[in-house]
Formats: sequence, structure tokens, C-alpha cells
Amino acid sequence: MGFGERMSESSENLQANRKEIGVAIVGCGTVGGATASILLNQQNRLSKCIDVPILLRAIVDVDFTHARELGLDESLFTENLDAVLSRDDVQIVAELIGGTDKAKEVVERALRAGKNVVTANKALLAHHGFELVKLARENSVCISFEASCAGAIPIISVLTEQLACDRIDAMYGIVNGTCNYILTAMSQQNRTYSEALAIAQQHGMAEADPSLDVMGHDSAHKLAILAALAFGQRIDLEKIYVEGINNLHPQDIQYGKELGYVIKLLAVAKRQGDALSLRVHPAFISTLHPLAWVSGPFNAVSIYAENAGHLMFYGRGAGVPATAAAVVGDIASIALGNAQRKFDKLRLWPDRNEPAKQLDIGTVRCRYYIRLQVEDRPGVFAQVARILGDRQISISSLLQHESGPGRTDGVPVVITTYDALEANVQAALAEINQLEVTKAPCVCIRMVAEHPEKMNS
Amino acid sequence: MGFGERMSESSENLQANRKEIGVAIVGCGTVGGATASILLNQQNRLSKCIDVPILLRAIVDVDFTHARELGLDESLFTENLDAVLSRDDVQIVAELIGGTDKAKEVVERALRAGKNVVTANKALLAHHGFELVKLARENSVCISFEASCAGAIPIISVLTEQLACDRIDAMYGIVNGTCNYILTAMSQQNRTYSEALAIAQQHGMAEADPSLDVMGHDSAHKLAILAALAFGQRIDLEKIYVEGINNLHPQDIQYGKELGYVIKLLAVAKRQGDALSLRVHPAFISTLHPLAWVSGPFNAVSIYAENAGHLMFYGRGAGVPATAAAVVGDIASIALGNAQRKFDKLRLWPDRNEPAKQLDIGTVRCRYYIRLQVEDRPGVFAQVARILGDRQISISSLLQHESGPGRTDGVPVVITTYDALEANVQAALAEINQLEVTKAPCVCIRMVAEHPEKMNS
Repeated sequence: MGFGERMSESSENLQANRKEIGVAIVGCGTVGGATASILLNQQNRLSKCIDVPILLRAIVDVDFTHARELGLDESLFTENLDAVLSRDDVQIVAELIGGTDKAKEVVERALRAGKNVVTANKALLAHHGFELVKLARENSVCISFEASCAGAIPIISVLTEQLACDRIDAMYGIVNGTCNYILTAMSQQNRTYSEALAIAQQHGMAEADPSLDVMGHDSAHKLAILAALAFGQRIDLEKIYVEGINNLHPQDIQYGKELGYVIKLLAVAKRQGDALSLRVHPAFISTLHPLAWVSGPFNAVSIYAENAGHLMFYGRGAGVPATAAAVVGDIASIALGNAQRKFDKLRLWPDRNEPAKQLDIGTVRCRYYIRLQVEDRPGVFAQVARILGDRQISISSLLQHESGPGRTDGVPVVITTYDALEANVQAALAEINQLEVTKAPCVCIRMVAEHPEKMNS
Repeated sequence: MGFGERMSESSENLQANRKEIGVAIVGCGTVGGATASILLNQQNRLSKCIDVPILLRAIVDVDFTHARELGLDESLFTENLDAVLSRDDVQIVAELIGGTDKAKEVVERALRAGKNVVTANKALLAHHGFELVKLARENSVCISFEASCAGAIPIISVLTEQLACDRIDAMYGIVNGTCNYILTAMSQQNRTYSEALAIAQQHGMAEADPSLDVMGHDSAHKLAILAALAFGQRIDLEKIYVEGINNLHPQDIQYGKELGYVIKLLAVAKRQGDALSLRVHPAFISTLHPLAWVSGPFNAVSIYAENAGHLMFYGRGAGVPATAAAVVGDIASIALGNAQRKFDKLRLWPDRNEPAKQLDIGTVRCRYYIRLQVEDRPGVFAQVARILGDRQISISSLLQHESGPGRTDGVPVVITTYDALEANVQAALAEINQLEVTKAPCVCIRMVAEHPEKMNS
């Protein structure tokens, strides 16, 4: 489509001639309510920062209980989305209802009505980003979603501006605050997974049904969104390997600690040749790793770029004010006209790119932490060592604590390996699990090293 | 000036109608050369990322030795800046000559010729930012300077986009890679300042004349630039309190370590009421502080915003590829038209704001590390304690190691205080230094606590 001049010019004019920008919020739950509060209560400040007045025109929902609790202006309340979408003085629709079905419908209707869309909805974008971006482009508007990934961390802004022309080699993220909170509690307070989850729920850090978070899917959604922009390729969510934190045992976290490692749920995206390795799984990282100190509800994303080198972005990955701040940031960027420019002139967006070659988890090479539960008698370790050796898996360290005599459930033996191929490790573990001396299936946790920086000088 | 429509429209049109953007680099030293290399050698990649071709049209210098070493296209070399500035196919001038006199002249001539300017020159901006920004606006172009602060960390991009509408309460930065490298060596390898400086110089991490870095002025330049944008106020560089690292003693760094603190050169900007406290000085921070793990040549900037909460940005603060990456990022942002929009429509720029009320260092309240060198005999500490108590300075901890008998040079006694007023501390220290029992002037290092986050929910 050439230089995209046609579209960019039409949208340019749309923005450039506006003396004010009207916003409608659809969905007035916690994030929608906080966004409305910022737009209404911080109106004076906003006007001091930016030469384009941003005016909240409507709050669309079917239940205004929360909106009333916040004391929002009731004259803005409406159940009639159609009426809002037909208003000429609304240029931006902020979809903050969550879920995917209803939200998708709202976003599609807004885009078709020629409204720019801001959304915090990672599930929606991870599943339907390609078609929604395409639909936005067909309607000469843009869709912005800073709040969908890592809360207030302006990671999408950075990927689509300062880093847009750099070549990103790898990205490592702690992008789920619930999981990081639970893992921090397990690690620092020596809690079981269930205890830590209960604490997180008590503190409002985990949902009543936490499965989307703890099973890693929420992190995979964010990884799909970020990787698409970082690498300028279309990402298939279904092909991202996902492993959650819900099966982690405190004893492994403690063994890891003894060895100098801390456990994190990592979202990893790496170039390997002309393909991408994308995965979400618990990982042991050295206490010296740049992500090791990121604890509690905080998120962080590390990026390794050819020219810029290693960059890391840290902040509140969730929570109402942080998410609302990101939504308001997107609204401001649309009001400035910059979001539209990025959307028109950058070729990073999924509708402008081919599908990525996504590698299978079996192709990963890293170090592994393996805990065996085996009989405590002569010759056992020789069997294990043979199986590992046969598959080119070298042992880096071994840890077996003294145990009392006569245990019939086996004793734990912890092995760390040198770099090995995942496919080989899985095959070896399957074989070890079949051994008569093995009393429980092996536990296997990937150990992720700090990414090497390629410095040009 | 109303909504800035006139300017923004004229510049809009300038950018929007361009099918390509021409760049001239002035000054082909290490950063200029690396920028030229990226623009020439990564041309294919740039064209895949952005719909606006970015073309290097000229390299202006008087000595092309380095340019030739890099194998840059000799047809671009010219000594004639005037000829370059008169070309219609050059829209951006990247000033990369450094220093302030010649650089200022080049930037002014480029702006007057209607060229957008990209510069990495922090000294120039800290001293003359106000007038240069004003001159850019008068000529309907913009001036971008991401590379001037914290290298490849996109901190200016973030301050002028996602955070432009948030209210920033405080900023804490480690913004000088040379100092951080030296302090890391002093701390981790127990080196003296002179030894650590020599190591830094051997590794290309410090200049032959390191005074601008080690005395804190380079950090103050960056603080002046960042604080102006973060707080939307004009900053007077001369009123920033500056203390360098060149007088630090290894024994204080080791005492700090014993107490659980690490030493960093911090650039601090905080709101206090309607005024700003701006300062650069060595500080002890807890090993649990978010900036504590930032070591070696890395930089980091922590920002505390009302809505977004705590954000931290980390990366290579200096070095040739990182700085060149930031310059190229600015060029891309100008090519997109976004830099101009930010420049036109945000009210953060110093020419649109009043001078800040900058507080004197005496108004700082924090904890203090104080090392006395006093006679080891009864009653000495009572005198010291009385002087501190008289000035509302409470002692939080005391540390005195056993020493051999008969020392005439006094023994070191380390005190940490609770929060106290700087003016009181300095007065107390002046008094203690006058005591007969004091054998050497007190050493005093501020202890900076983690900034409290005001969370809205």
C-alpha cells in the first residue's frame, strides 16, 4: 500500500483540525471508573499538559453502581452504545469491559463507526489482534493498547517509537503480577502454592478464579502482543508454549535458593535464526540476573536490541490506577495524533506482517534443574547418569542432603545440567520416570541465564 | 498562543507530504560515525520498519579520519555546513560534535535554516535549552535530545508521551555511567577512588579529564533536562546542588556495606509543596532499594507518578552504540512527525513554562551517615551527642570498631541519624569539627530512602 499516504492524510486531517477530543468509556468497572475519574478530576492538569482538550462525553454501561460510588457525573451515564457511536464529538472509545465476546463486539462496532479505540483487553488482542488491527486500518482509525501489557509500564509506547527502528533480539518479561506475588510469597515466606494463592486473594492480588493467571495464559496473551510488535511478525497464540506456576513445590524453590537461584514466571521471546522461540514457564534465574529483584506485584520487561543494548522497564503491572494511567496515556497519544501516525507509518503491526515461524519447545537449549525422587541405594545414580549421558546432558551440580534411614518414598536428588536440548531432557526424564528405583516423577525447571548482549563496540 | 494550531499545521504539512526524510550529521566522531553507520548499513531494516525512507545526505566535519576508518560513503563528506543547510532535501540535522560553543552555533544555524535538530549534547541543553527550544519554535521545527540523557534509555520519549499527562512527584536517577562504574569498582573490589578511576580510564569508561563526570556536573546537566520535562518547569542549572564522588573514601563505602547500604551518585528531583528540590550527590541507599542493583556502566531512572505509580527505566547510559541508537530513534520520531507533534502540542517544554522555585540544599530532610574521627577517651561521645541533640538530630545507629591503644589520629565512629534537616546537620558538623577532640573533619553522606508510593487504591 505504498507509503500509506492516503490513510495517514485522511486521519491526519481528522486529528489536526480538532480543537478538542471527545472520549466515551464503555464499561465502568474498576479500571473504567478510575479512567473516568482521571479524565474528570484531573481535567485541569490535563489541560496544562497538552494543547488538545480531552473531554469525557459518555460512560456506557448497564450497571452504574460503581460509577455512582465514585461520584462520577451522572449526566454522562448511558446504556445506549449506538447513540454514543453516532456522536460526532466522540473520537475515542475506551473499551474497558473485559472478557472477549462482548468486548470484541464493542470494539468492532466502535472501529466501524470510525472511532479510535483504546483497550486494556489482552485476551481480546492476543486472540483477535490481527483482525481488529486490520479493521481499524480499514476504517482509518487506530487501536491503542498500552494498558493490555504490563500495566503502567510504557512498553508498547517504547516498542513503537524509540525502538521501532532497532532490531530486537530477545525479550524476557515478568508480566503477571499475580504470579509474581505468589512466587515471592512462596520464596520469601516459604509458603506452599495454595497458601500463597490464598494470601494473594486476601490482598486482592488474585482473582477468585485465578486460573488464567496462574496457569500462564495471561502471560502468554501479553507475550503474543509484545512479540508481534517487537519482532514485527504475526504471532499465533496457540503455538506459544505455556506452563503455569500451579504445580510448583516449595521444596524446589528452597533448593533453588540454596543454589543461588530465584523462581520467576518468565515470558520469553527470542530470535533463533529466522524463527522465534516464544514461551511462558517458571524459570530459575540467578540472584544476579537483572530480573531477580523484581518482586511482589511488580512487572518488568527486559529487551535486548542490536543498537540500544540491554534495556529494562519496571513498574506496576496491574492495579487500577496503573492500568487507568496507561489508558489515559493512550488517549493522550491519540489526541496528539501520534498514535495514529505510529499506526499508519510503522510496519510493525500484525496486519502488515507475515506469520512468524514459531519454534517448538523441544528446540529450546538451556540449563535445567531436575529433582529426582529415587531409592537411596548403590547403583541408582549410575543408571540416571547413563540416561542423561546418552542424550548429551552434562551434569553441572548435584545436591543430595543426608536423610534418615529406611525411607521407602525415596530421597530427593537435585541435579543441575549444563546447556542441553529440551527434547533430549524430556526424553531422558521420561526414561528416568520409568525406572524401578524412581519413586515419583522427576521435577524439571528450566534455568534461564542472563541474555548475552551483543555490543557493537 | 492558544492551541498552537498555526505552528502545528504548518509543520504537519511539512512532514505529512514528505515521501522521504533527509538527514545531515554534523560531527563524525564516535557517536556521529556510529549514527552514520546505522543509517547507511541498516537502511534495509529501517525501510522495513517505517513507511518514511530516512536517507543520510551529508556528513559534515573538518576531519574525516574516523569516517574513513568506518568505511562510510565518501561522497557524503563535506566541510561546508552552509551548503548542507541550504539543501531542500535535508530536514534533520544531527549535531554530534559535542562541546558547547561550536555546537551551539551549529544548532542555532540549523534551526534558523528551518531544519529539525537532533542532539546528544547535554551540556548545551542544560545551559541553553530554553533559548534553543524557543528558537526551534520560532522556526516551526523541533529539537530532539533523547540521547542527551541516560543513553539508550528512552526516558525523554516516555516523559513526553505516556507520562505527559500524569503528575510526576519525584525522579531518582543514576545517570552517569562513569561514576557508577567507579563506585561499583570501589564498592565491590574495595578500591580507592584513584585506583577505580584508573581502571575506568583503562576500560574506556572515563575520559582522560574526568572532572565533568566525577564532580557531578554531567549528572546535573541531565537532571536539569529531565526535570524540566518531568515537572513542566524551567530549571536553573546553577541552582542545582552538586557534589561529586571524587572525595569518597573506601572506608565509608565499607562501613556503609556493613550497615546494609550501597553508595550511588544520585540525581534527585522531588516536589516539595510548590517548589522543587534538585540535587546531585553521593548517597547511601539500602541494598533493597530499587536502584541498588544498578551497577557498572548502567544507568537507571526511577519515576514516581501519581497515576502510574513507580516506574523504573534501566539501560546503557553511555557508550557509542547506545547513544547512536537514541539519536536514530529521535530521527525516526521526527520522520514519523511525532516529535514535532509533541513539541507543538505538549506544554512541557521550557519555553512554555515559568521558572521553577528551586529549593536550597539546606531544606533537604533525610537520614545521614556521619563518620567522626575523634579521640578515644571518656566524655567525647557525650559532647557529640549534645551537639546533635541540640539540633533535633536523633541517632539511629552507632558503629565503633575496637582499635589498638594509643592512637593519636583519633578513632572512627560512624553514626546514622533518623530523618533530619540538612541545615541542622551541616551546622552540627561545623560545630563538631571545631571540637578539640575531633582529629579530622567529619564525613557526611546522605542516606536516600525508597520514595513512598502514593497509591490511589
